[in-house]
Amino acid sequence: MPKQIPDIVIGRLPVYLRALQQMAQEGRQVTSSQELGERLGISAAQIRKDLSQFGEFGKQGTGYNIEYLADQVREILNVNKVWDVAIVGAGDIGRALAGYNGFNERGFRIKMIFDNAPSRIGQRHGDFTIKDSATMKEEIRAAGIKMAMIAVPAAYAQAVADQLVEAGVKAILNYAPVNLNVPLGVRVLNIDPSIHLQRMTYYLE
Amino acid sequence: MPKQIPDIVIGRLPVYLRALQQMAQEGRQVTSSQELGERLGISAAQIRKDLSQFGEFGKQGTGYNIEYLADQVREILNVNKVWDVAIVGAGDIGRALAGYNGFNERGFRIKMIFDNAPSRIGQRHGDFTIKDSATMKEEIRAAGIKMAMIAVPAAYAQAVADQLVEAGVKAILNYAPVNLNVPLGVRVLNIDPSIHLQRMTYYLE
Repeated sequence: MPKQIPDIVIGRLPVYLRALQQMAQEGRQVTSSQELGERLGISAAQIRKDLSQFGEFGKQGTGYNIEYLADQVREILNVNKVWDVAIVGAGDIGRALAGYNGFNERGFRIKMIFDNAPSRIGQRHGDFTIKDSATMKEEIRAAGIKMAMIAVPAAYAQAVADQLVEAGVKAILNYAPVNLNVPLGVRVLNIDPSIHLQRMTYYLE
Repeated sequence: MPKQIPDIVIGRLPVYLRALQQMAQEGRQVTSSQELGERLGISAAQIRKDLSQFGEFGKQGTGYNIEYLADQVREILNVNKVWDVAIVGAGDIGRALAGYNGFNERGFRIKMIFDNAPSRIGQRHGDFTIKDSATMKEEIRAAGIKMAMIAVPAAYAQAVADQLVEAGVKAILNYAPVNLNVPLGVRVLNIDPSIHLQRMTYYLE
């Protein structure tokens, strides 16, 4: 049985990966925990400690091979393959997500977008035709989609989450400003700008 | 000197506040750490421990008065007043944020939105006229704005952050998929859907 890694460590790995991919794009080949730490505002010791939970990725004195380390982190995070993602809600946020071009090289492909408003169903948006959320459960199950983003008004979010879970979705990124109840084995992360802003005002005068 | 509270505790307070506000909207007056915990998927013991860092907010056996506890948490988080917020970037995400109606009752007021594209500058969007980012530094400083959301392409985000810091901004919610370097005393939180999705794929098959 693999050892349990704290979720806060898991949460930093995508941040490391993003920085490594950026360095690779800059044509760089080798980096160090010091340099990564300076880019990210995280101590070099923390980065070494986090990575050491998963193995030995660098040699003392020669640093990390960027491409190799990025590949390893992708493998740890299971994004060395492409995950299909469904979006529910084709309002401002849902459409912004559908049009966001930062998913593809990071392990995700937006596959479908749903809404329940007759004025939106059937409309084109970028590469997508907005689908009727009445068919959501069947379509997501048939496509074997395991990840979804909820971008519907708060009042509808729990009902949408229930349907996604029934359809086999295992991970939900929730943009609705409400807490979702899901069964064990399904993960939810919440994005609510007010929550994030309030986490910073604590530190302000 | 006040004791140092771990940031992870601070990060949960806005989640508690959101649930309390929701209960108040439902017409409820009293709750318990058990009930809060069930709504949020957090243990009752954790909630009691978090709140006890700031004082005594409930009586053993009678639970918490929702209105009172919400007021206290608002005061702790400094959102018992209204913070003006500037948005930089009037693309899909910036416009979605400008139109989001979840800020007002939670301590924030979007005050200005900036872009550098001639095709956008001067356009109306909802209640806002998109302003020229060339005037951003002066306008934000003159208005005394301390909080901003960055929703520009990754390549521009650091330059925007530098200007915001010069204008006196102390807290930045960054939607650009890139890490920002800011001086001590300025806080940044990052919202990057790929980062959040990758934090969940770790746990998937």
